[in-house]
Amino acid sequence: MKKIKDIELKEGASATKLVEGMQSAGFQAAHLGEAVELIGQMKEEKCTLFLGFTANLVASGLRGIIKELCEKGFVDAIVTTAGSVDHDIIKSFNPYLLGTFNADDVELHRKGINRLGNIFVETKGFELLEQKMQPWLKELYEKKKCVSPSELIEFVGSKLPEESFLHWCSKQEIPVFCPGITDGAIGLQMYFFKQENPDFCVDVTKDMKQLAGLVLQAEKTGAIILGGGISKHHIIGANIVRDGLDYAVYVSTASEFDGSLSGAQTREAKSWGKIKEKGSSVQVNCDATIALPLMAAALKEKGLL
Amino acid sequence: MKKIKDIELKEGASATKLVEGMQSAGFQAAHLGEAVELIGQMKEEKCTLFLGFTANLVASGLRGIIKELCEKGFVDAIVTTAGSVDHDIIKSFNPYLLGTFNADDVELHRKGINRLGNIFVETKGFELLEQKMQPWLKELYEKKKCVSPSELIEFVGSKLPEESFLHWCSKQEIPVFCPGITDGAIGLQMYFFKQENPDFCVDVTKDMKQLAGLVLQAEKTGAIILGGGISKHHIIGANIVRDGLDYAVYVSTASEFDGSLSGAQTREAKSWGKIKEKGSSVQVNCDATIALPLMAAALKEKGLL
Amino acid sequence: MKKIKDIELKEGASATKLVEGMQSAGFQAAHLGEAVELIGQMKEEKCTLFLGFTANLVASGLRGIIKELCEKGFVDAIVTTAGSVDHDIIKSFNPYLLGTFNADDVELHRKGINRLGNIFVETKGFELLEQKMQPWLKELYEKKKCVSPSELIEFVGSKLPEESFLHWCSKQEIPVFCPGITDGAIGLQMYFFKQENPDFCVDVTKDMKQLAGLVLQAEKTGAIILGGGISKHHIIGANIVRDGLDYAVYVSTASEFDGSLSGAQTREAKSWGKIKEKGSSVQVNCDATIALPLMAAALKEKGLL
Amino acid sequence: MKKIKDIELKEGASATKLVEGMQSAGFQAAHLGEAVELIGQMKEEKCTLFLGFTANLVASGLRGIIKELCEKGFVDAIVTTAGSVDHDIIKSFNPYLLGTFNADDVELHRKGINRLGNIFVETKGFELLEQKMQPWLKELYEKKKCVSPSELIEFVGSKLPEESFLHWCSKQEIPVFCPGITDGAIGLQMYFFKQENPDFCVDVTKDMKQLAGLVLQAEKTGAIILGGGISKHHIIGANIVRDGLDYAVYVSTASEFDGSLSGAQTREAKSWGKIKEKGSSVQVNCDATIALPLMAAALKEKGLL
Repeated sequence: MKKIKDIELKEGASATKLVEGMQSAGFQAAHLGEAVELIGQMKEEKCTLFLGFTANLVASGLRGIIKELCEKGFVDAIVTTAGSVDHDIIKSFNPYLLGTFNADDVELHRKGINRLGNIFVETKGFELLEQKMQPWLKELYEKKKCVSPSELIEFVGSKLPEESFLHWCSKQEIPVFCPGITDGAIGLQMYFFKQENPDFCVDVTKDMKQLAGLVLQAEKTGAIILGGGISKHHIIGANIVRDGLDYAVYVSTASEFDGSLSGAQTREAKSWGKIKEKGSSVQVNCDATIALPLMAAALKEKGLL
Repeated sequence: MKKIKDIELKEGASATKLVEGMQSAGFQAAHLGEAVELIGQMKEEKCTLFLGFTANLVASGLRGIIKELCEKGFVDAIVTTAGSVDHDIIKSFNPYLLGTFNADDVELHRKGINRLGNIFVETKGFELLEQKMQPWLKELYEKKKCVSPSELIEFVGSKLPEESFLHWCSKQEIPVFCPGITDGAIGLQMYFFKQENPDFCVDVTKDMKQLAGLVLQAEKTGAIILGGGISKHHIIGANIVRDGLDYAVYVSTASEFDGSLSGAQTREAKSWGKIKEKGSSVQVNCDATIALPLMAAALKEKGLL
Repeated sequence: MKKIKDIELKEGASATKLVEGMQSAGFQAAHLGEAVELIGQMKEEKCTLFLGFTANLVASGLRGIIKELCEKGFVDAIVTTAGSVDHDIIKSFNPYLLGTFNADDVELHRKGINRLGNIFVETKGFELLEQKMQPWLKELYEKKKCVSPSELIEFVGSKLPEESFLHWCSKQEIPVFCPGITDGAIGLQMYFFKQENPDFCVDVTKDMKQLAGLVLQAEKTGAIILGGGISKHHIIGANIVRDGLDYAVYVSTASEFDGSLSGAQTREAKSWGKIKEKGSSVQVNCDATIALPLMAAALKEKGLL
Repeated sequence: MKKIKDIELKEGASATKLVEGMQSAGFQAAHLGEAVELIGQMKEEKCTLFLGFTANLVASGLRGIIKELCEKGFVDAIVTTAGSVDHDIIKSFNPYLLGTFNADDVELHRKGINRLGNIFVETKGFELLEQKMQPWLKELYEKKKCVSPSELIEFVGSKLPEESFLHWCSKQEIPVFCPGITDGAIGLQMYFFKQENPDFCVDVTKDMKQLAGLVLQAEKTGAIILGGGISKHHIIGANIVRDGLDYAVYVSTASEFDGSLSGAQTREAKSWGKIKEKGSSVQVNCDATIALPLMAAALKEKGLL
């Protein structure tokens, strides 16, 4: 059994040194260290790698890291929510602002500011999204009346600049699955569009085949899942068809005690065959905005990213 | 300002007395008391009432309360996840079991038991779901090749027995919106079905009109939202089109600090126009399996349910 | 294995019926049901019963229930923090107020209001505490220069009115252990007093013998522990000398993942011999202001309280 | 208002670069960035600096960082719990082991292993503590029959090797306050010792003067508080006598909703005058084993540590 080692700070310590120190420090530091190791193994064993995340992370500075993971082809597929598409579009044209959690929300509303924790999004960003989406939907619709969520997102990505992660997904042919595509500002835009074009259709069953195909054809699969909800479940649920993921890293702040999927630990997934009985997995209980930069920097330093 | 009152236990105290005691007790007890009051006001003001919940609650004994809310027509629309449909189908034919959080998941997997916190679901339940869903999908498909999630669920509900909440939604014409319909065992069944019937289609944009219609036509709207994720967001997101809910009660265990939608307090929704500036709202930080029975029992005792 | 049963609401359902419904409902409802059962067993087996709680609960309406548990001699010993003594004194003379979590704290400070979550305590309450404590300390000091925390608290209790839980502890000879007695407003008062009376002394090692005696002489021991921190640890730590508690019920909102004592589940205590290997125990993950009234009402209805 | 910036990973990024990226990333990353900045300001303004932490962190690898903070005289006073003294003694002679959260606690108990989250402590460590403490208590007692907690700890520190943080506190004359000194293995040792030496006494009121003196004499005060409970409260409570801390950084995993002191945000402390109305403060919601190494490494790189 490994010993707990007191962390020794070194001058100019790099991310790798920090993560190495954490590995023998216990509690969540040890989990973070293990997570970096498992991701290294996923890459070594050439796993088909799924990345899942909630929309708030695209609103945050993590978008830069997600973008890099796509640009470099580090991941093979993404599962996320409609809000991620919203934020990627808006941030491509209008920056978000750093606010505070304790702001007066009624006052913000009067000023046209929408709050996501301590991130502020100006309402004009959503107007911008409308101006972009309507012609894009028209262009897409003219090619194809009934699309899958991933086809729609691929098209959107092709319109976005290089700072967008969807831009790189389109370029690198990384499918972006979004089983709840209508639940966001883009959903509202589709609703407006459909009012005029009733035969416009988004068929969510269309993506199942591609997703299942990815899972079934893989030698091994691995997942990095940031946060909970539908993007978490969709990745592990899809892996049932191959008797589970070989590797899974969860970064989460949710609790297990309420029986929610968001709070379910990796070991629960083993009972379902969502992670293999012998699958390697770890959960890092931490806000992803702190954990991911550290993990990604260490992977980069190791030449894995 | 109200005083904090020391709770006095009474012999044979009913739910109403308990909730009254809580109202002046501070912390989350006070929030629970306020929640019961706000739901009372929602009914008094004849709000169009939205109920949102995560799937784990259908796996739990709360299904009985949700069923009653539908049977009595207490709610006007439901937004939930695919797993809720899964559990409602399976539980209608095969009971779930009370297990423990600390069970050995690898052993459970070998025994054909799937774990949701301390609830155990036998794998044969999912086989049963397959046996039911395939002919049902066929029957539905023969009537209509391209359905909305709510149409599909309405059809499923019409097949289920009286203990099912979906049975009562079908009977009482309460629409059940499920923007992430493919993310569950029923999604897998649709995928299998589509393999044979490629033109089977579930168009998620179809439900937007009905949902928006409900929101726009209402004099006032109110929401009871249990848990986070897509069902939470879809309700408050839809209410943007009328500048926000008039009333909102959240019951949640998620934290605010990570900027997630699941953890966002009601006041955050005011900045977005998802709850009205003057909307009345409260969050009860509590596992819904404890909070909801108490709240529902008090509402029943008051003759509101 | 027990089945999960859908909860059926009954007209005028009492606390017992509610708790019975919860017992088969899964998640934390099932834990709450089990907690009531275990407390019933503790009483049946005539366990020496320890009650632990954090100070905020005395600020809340739970003081009424804690008082009743003492008045009825339901518990044999209490372990708590200095703040509990502060609040019990102040509330005996000046009520606390129900405020909000989102109040402006700077403004409150200017108004002489101190905030504990959504409970407001007027600064004059602390002035009142000073006016009471100084003569009391003098009176005590004249009898005995060096006291234990439990002696000091027994003396304070003897001065307080019937609504105070310490009043009943004094009356019923229930020792109140407070290993961190200086950490509160009464600690500050002792500091002021000692300035004038340097040989005034509170010897914390004095209480160890009495506490260990209680633990060692008991046939069986049980604990109800609300919240974490020093009062939680002191109870389970003391039970090491008899190889652990026979019964333990935790009501807590703290998380396990950070390795903290506050978040440690009951099973962790078994590795330490703080709970017996075969000890019966359960943790209810819930704000005590919601869980305890329900549990206590059910115990009362069963004639146990 | 600052913009949210997408994080750009750099090759071989140091802790400072990581923290800089986090500062504009939103959510808790932004709080961590602000925390580093505030600690920098505390040093710049020569604040009397208080460090508070819970015992589990001494069991973890963070002991190395805490030790360095003491060795370098970075902090002026420490407030902690009895368990911190326990762990510092035991780890000085017997290493702790990295285990898992899901270990079988009954089996661990049989093997003589005590679990703290995923850290394992062999029972022989506590036997070792007994062998050390009894002669040390005797030696101390022969000099002085009635000691304060900080005197006792100063003495213990003088016996410990260089890897111990208490060693450096003794050497650097950094007082270690421990208002709940009996609540731990050392408390049990004092109880055993007192059985033979009834006039051995630990007077907790003795430390109040020194602590209050430090607070009152300071030009400015700052606090770094890791975790909750008595060590958190004792620092902020002591600062009431000077109308509050000028700076406060909390690193915590506790929630606000239950009105507990552990979960109380920095702004709550302003209502009490525990932090100044204009005091600068931030809470980082994160396991300290992840947050502190990153923060300390950045401070070191900036030449502040």
